[in-house]
Amino acid sequence: MYNIDKLFQTVAERGHVCLGLDTAAEYIPERERTASPAESVLAYNKALIDATLDVTACYKVQIAYYEEMGIAGLQCYAATLKHLRDKGALVIADIKRGDIADTASRYARAHFEGEFEADFVTLNPYMGMDSIEPWLQWADKKGKGAFVLMRTSNKGRWDFEELELKRPDNERPMRLYDAVGDKLSQLSASHAGKHGYGAFGVVVGADPQTPAEREEAAAIRAGRPNLFFLIPGYGAQGGAASDAALLLREGNGGVVNASRSILKAWQAAAGGDPASADNAFAASAARQAAIEMRDAIRGAL
Amino acid sequence: MYNIDKLFQTVAERGHVCLGLDTAAEYIPERERTASPAESVLAYNKALIDATLDVTACYKVQIAYYEEMGIAGLQCYAATLKHLRDKGALVIADIKRGDIADTASRYARAHFEGEFEADFVTLNPYMGMDSIEPWLQWADKKGKGAFVLMRTSNKGRWDFEELELKRPDNERPMRLYDAVGDKLSQLSASHAGKHGYGAFGVVVGADPQTPAEREEAAAIRAGRPNLFFLIPGYGAQGGAASDAALLLREGNGGVVNASRSILKAWQAAAGGDPASADNAFAASAARQAAIEMRDAIRGAL
Repeated sequence: MYNIDKLFQTVAERGHVCLGLDTAAEYIPERERTASPAESVLAYNKALIDATLDVTACYKVQIAYYEEMGIAGLQCYAATLKHLRDKGALVIADIKRGDIADTASRYARAHFEGEFEADFVTLNPYMGMDSIEPWLQWADKKGKGAFVLMRTSNKGRWDFEELELKRPDNERPMRLYDAVGDKLSQLSASHAGKHGYGAFGVVVGADPQTPAEREEAAAIRAGRPNLFFLIPGYGAQGGAASDAALLLREGNGGVVNASRSILKAWQAAAGGDPASADNAFAASAARQAAIEMRDAIRGAL
Repeated sequence: MYNIDKLFQTVAERGHVCLGLDTAAEYIPERERTASPAESVLAYNKALIDATLDVTACYKVQIAYYEEMGIAGLQCYAATLKHLRDKGALVIADIKRGDIADTASRYARAHFEGEFEADFVTLNPYMGMDSIEPWLQWADKKGKGAFVLMRTSNKGRWDFEELELKRPDNERPMRLYDAVGDKLSQLSASHAGKHGYGAFGVVVGADPQTPAEREEAAAIRAGRPNLFFLIPGYGAQGGAASDAALLLREGNGGVVNASRSILKAWQAAAGGDPASADNAFAASAARQAAIEMRDAIRGAL
C-alpha cells in the first residue's frame, strides 16, 4: 500500500489539516525556552503533536528551521520525526531536494530510511525527471511518496513557474507548471494507489485569488484528477478555506498546510498575558486552531 | 570584497579545477575503511584536500553524500568544511536549496555561518527570485556567493530547463534557462565584483556536444559576461576539456567540477593491486589527476 492511500484515509477521517512544524525557538512560550533552543523546540513539537494527532491528516517538518541550529538542530529534527513515527502519524519531510542520479539516490536513502525517515518528501523538478525518478523505487519498496513543486503560493512563482511555453497555434496555452503537472500525471498513472491518486503528488498553493486566479485553480484541480495536492499558503500566508477548497476533489485529494497560524495560536489565546503561557497552554491553543481550520475547510467544500 | 573575486584570483593562479568532494565510503581504499564510514570519509577528504590545495581553485562538497550517513555524516560534513576553512580554501556547499522568505533566510544562516559555513552555496531557481534574493544580504554582509542552477548537464534538463518560452514573433527565441540567466544577470549587475563578475553566478553544464550544442554553449557564455559559471559534467560525466573551455571567458569566469575522476583516480593508478593503496597513495593519485585536468583545460583555451 502506498502512503498516499493512508493519507487519503486520514483526510477522510480527520480532515485536511497538515500541521507544519516550522518551529522557530521564538515561537515558544518564554517560560518554556531553555538554554538549548533545539531541546526547547523538541519539547514544544512533542506537546503540539500529542495534542493534535486526531484532528490533523499529517505533519510537515520544514528542515530549514532545524538546519539553522546546526547538528543539534538536526538531532532535534530526527527526534521530532521519531516521535511522529512512534505515534503513527504521517510525516512529510519538507526538504525540496532536486538532484540527479546517484546524488538523488543518496538523498532518498537519507530521507526514506534511517534517522531521518519520513513518509513523504517534497521535491523540486527544475533539473528534470531524472531528479524525480530515482525516488520512485521507494514507492514500490516501502510505499513512500513525494510532493513535487508545481505551482507554489509565493509571488516569485511569476518569475518562472507561470511562464508561458511556446506551443503550436492550434493547441491550448501551457505554462511551465503545466509541463511539470503533465510529467507527474504520467508518472503517477503508472504508480496508482487504490483511491485513484498516484504515489507522487504535487505542491499547488492556495492564496487570495482574483476571479481569474480562482478559475485557474479550479482548472488545475480538474485537469489533474490523479494527483494528490499538498497545498501551502493558508492562514499566515493569506489563503482562506474557500481558496483551499477549490483545490480539493470530492472532499479529498489534498492536504492544506498551516504552520504559524497553529504554532503561534497561543499568543492570541493568551491575550494580554503571554508570560502565563506554557507548552500545555500552547498545545491546547494549537488543537483549537487546528479544529477551527479543519471545520472551516470542511464548511467550504 | 566578494568571494567571487577571491575565486577569480584562485582560478588565475591555480587553474579551473573545482574538486567535488562527493565522497562515498566505497571510493576509499579498502585498508583505510574503518567501522565508522563517516570517520573514514573525513580522513580521506583531509588527505585529498591537503594534497590538492595548490592545484585547485576551490572545493565543492555535495551534502547528499553526508546526509545519507545521518547525523554522523553531517558531523563529517561540518568537519570537512572546517578543515577547508582552516586551510584557507574556497568552498561551495552543493545544497541546491530553493525555498522562500523566512525559510530561505534560515537556510542562509545555516550555510553562511556556524557549523556549516561555506563561501558559496548552490541554489535552485524554480520557485522564483524570492527564493534567491534572501541569500543576497550575505553577499553584502560577508562577501558570500551562490551558483544558481541555469542549464545543467543531465539529460533531464530537456524536460523543463530547455523548454522554449512563448515570445513575440519578432523577438529572439528563449528557453526557460535563458529566463533564469536574465534574472541572474540583472541581480549580479547590482552586485558586481571587481573583475566584472557578480557575487552570484550560475551552474552551466559541459557535456559531449553536437555542433549545435557547442554553438549553444558559446552563446550562453557570450550572452552572460557578468556571470561566473560553475561547470559540472566533466570527466566521469562525459565532458571534455574542450567542452568546458567553451564556457570560459578570457581564460577565467568559471570553475570546472570533477568528483569521481579525481576521488577514484587511485583505482587506475593502483592497477592490478588495489589492496596496496592507502590514503596517501590516493591523495597522490588525486593530485596527479587534478594537475592533468588543470593542464588539459588550460591547453584547450
